[in-house]
Amino acid sequence: MPVNLPLPKAENLQPVRGVRIGTAMAGVRKAGRRDLSVWLLAEGSVVAGVFTSNRFCAAPVQVCREHLAVQPQGIRALLINTGNANAGTGADGLVRARRSCASVAQALQLSPSQVLPFSTGVIMETLPVDRIEAALPAAVAAARDDAWLEAAQAIMTTDTQPKAASRRVLIQGQAVTLTGIAKGAGMIRPNMATMLGFIATDACISAELLQRFTCEAADASFNRITIDGDTSTNDCFITVATQAAGHAPLLEASSADAQAFVAALRELAVELAQAIVRDGEGATKFISITVEGGRDEAECRLAACAIAHSPLVKTAFYASDPNLGRILAAVGYAGIGDLDQSLIDLHLGEVHVVTGGGRHPQYVEAEAARVMQAAEIEVRVHLHRGSAVSTVWTCDFSEDYVRINADYRS
Amino acid sequence: MPVNLPLPKAENLQPVRGVRIGTAMAGVRKAGRRDLSVWLLAEGSVVAGVFTSNRFCAAPVQVCREHLAVQPQGIRALLINTGNANAGTGADGLVRARRSCASVAQALQLSPSQVLPFSTGVIMETLPVDRIEAALPAAVAAARDDAWLEAAQAIMTTDTQPKAASRRVLIQGQAVTLTGIAKGAGMIRPNMATMLGFIATDACISAELLQRFTCEAADASFNRITIDGDTSTNDCFITVATQAAGHAPLLEASSADAQAFVAALRELAVELAQAIVRDGEGATKFISITVEGGRDEAECRLAACAIAHSPLVKTAFYASDPNLGRILAAVGYAGIGDLDQSLIDLHLGEVHVVTGGGRHPQYVEAEAARVMQAAEIEVRVHLHRGSAVSTVWTCDFSEDYVRINADYRS
Repeated sequence: MPVNLPLPKAENLQPVRGVRIGTAMAGVRKAGRRDLSVWLLAEGSVVAGVFTSNRFCAAPVQVCREHLAVQPQGIRALLINTGNANAGTGADGLVRARRSCASVAQALQLSPSQVLPFSTGVIMETLPVDRIEAALPAAVAAARDDAWLEAAQAIMTTDTQPKAASRRVLIQGQAVTLTGIAKGAGMIRPNMATMLGFIATDACISAELLQRFTCEAADASFNRITIDGDTSTNDCFITVATQAAGHAPLLEASSADAQAFVAALRELAVELAQAIVRDGEGATKFISITVEGGRDEAECRLAACAIAHSPLVKTAFYASDPNLGRILAAVGYAGIGDLDQSLIDLHLGEVHVVTGGGRHPQYVEAEAARVMQAAEIEVRVHLHRGSAVSTVWTCDFSEDYVRINADYRS
Repeated sequence: MPVNLPLPKAENLQPVRGVRIGTAMAGVRKAGRRDLSVWLLAEGSVVAGVFTSNRFCAAPVQVCREHLAVQPQGIRALLINTGNANAGTGADGLVRARRSCASVAQALQLSPSQVLPFSTGVIMETLPVDRIEAALPAAVAAARDDAWLEAAQAIMTTDTQPKAASRRVLIQGQAVTLTGIAKGAGMIRPNMATMLGFIATDACISAELLQRFTCEAADASFNRITIDGDTSTNDCFITVATQAAGHAPLLEASSADAQAFVAALRELAVELAQAIVRDGEGATKFISITVEGGRDEAECRLAACAIAHSPLVKTAFYASDPNLGRILAAVGYAGIGDLDQSLIDLHLGEVHVVTGGGRHPQYVEAEAARVMQAAEIEVRVHLHRGSAVSTVWTCDFSEDYVRINADYRS
């Protein structure tokens, strides 16, 4: 059961002018499910992307990087499969990723470098590119502009529900739409982007600015979540701007219009990123961790991530057991070399737990236990050595995480 | 059930001339268990120690460091309690740790700085120093030279069995004894030493050389294990050399005698460190991870630790499911910035799984599944970029880890 994550409704997902999506059943891993998506992008669309920092990155990630380098402004199609990550597949994996792009290009009369491939699923298995090719015509034929919910369903792996959302923003009096989907529930410690996230907009924006805003949005959203600390081989966060809205193009990051756009982009990315955590494998709680009073954002994030990754902290949250010394221990080993423990404050929700590195004199454990029973919990640590702040989001750690990952392939 | 870890037998634990240990029931956390130990060290004993790198280190760790700085050659007693870590306890925790040393000093007519305090157990709770003081006379009165098994039992927390072992080594024709104990089963990612490890020897050795060898032994043993990646606030590894063996003192690290001694010390430390992993919370398998072909030992260890910490890798081992792409993913995000994935080899036991970054053509999954069903598993990764090598030891990750840590305080 995801944590406070309502099922997206198809009617709330706004079509984006210039984007049509078709899905099909290719039988990549299992028969009878929509596991293949093709996105058709209008001519003139601009595409930006950020990718996993995992050095063992998947073949499709490598091909994406190549194709975006060739022509970020000429991308006309995305091809996404679930069920197989095409990672850890060596040279043969690259051949297969390239062949799938060539097949899409042939069907749509494009050049292969105008197609970006994405895969998610099991690592180290051969991509059944023949089955993908066989299902391609059906996916292309099915393409419509209101298939966003289907698109979100067609990229799921261990996700228990699809993740999709829309935003509207006014630019020069013109309504601009942003609609996005994401997937991921395990192997989540994005370090550039999430496992797979896609946002399309009809905004008019230059390729440079879209790339810059995409990085900013990723950093404020997908780069702040963790479920199990495992950075995936296939992380991709892609934005598409079809330029169909008709307003004067956004060129300057500092303009009011550009700021309104990036705020909406960031908000949507945060909603999708948090949806991944809410649907984290085995998750029963959604936890926001804010570390403030650091010398810089990096050290705040280091401490917040140490807390968010600690299996001991996560199991304590699962049990609603205020064994909160585990949070202090995580702050202590986070890697802040000259941290002074005698300055640390810790709040759990509104409960002041630790002051000066020790138990607050008025702290009563029952109050912390009450906070921990909620499905949404806020942890705040103050380092008292500067004015920087950072927030990350994570979930708790239950037996179900182990069960899901011990069973994933069976 | 620990993995291939026979119960130590009292008769196999050799007394160390100059060391007597007494235990008592102080009721630190629960009544009716031996939770307090006092070690009485002969005059002239030399003590060395390495401590947690956690900046949120426990009060007793801070006091140990102070006292060892004052007089490493004058330490005459160790005081150890389980049930309470005296960590995250602020200034009050320091007062209590110091008071416990003063009480031991008074009972034994020593100065407080001749006593080293150690605590393990729950973090952020007040140390009941009055109960410790009340039980002290009984512990001192019980001191004997053959109480090693009791000593190992008296420091357990979530350990399912005591960890203790002995070694004999000949120095100048003289039999020298090393006997040690350790505890720890969770919050284990030592980063200087394990949660608590103690080795005593009657060897004659200078304080400087003992400290140097203690660091070397810790680095070859406790610093190479991980259960959950959580570096404890209380890690300590202490060696005591009572100088009672009567041989000419070891002064030069390079001498044959000193090398024989450090080899025995290292071997004993490795046995104790591996015992901690074998008794890891929820562990069903013992896994050795060797990364070779790195440019230096540090990058090999980085990759080995990434594999050892990955919840996905650990749950796959638990399930005996050769979902081995997860190992590649961990190598990829370990932090080796210029790693070339196309060079990577992976062996599981004798099975060659990955070559050139992709599935080995002769690899058959059933063979890897067979290797994974054993209780002891070897993972070998070759980076093919140098000649360095590093090994770490870990265990798998089962529902029981979650259960134990969700229940720990109840």
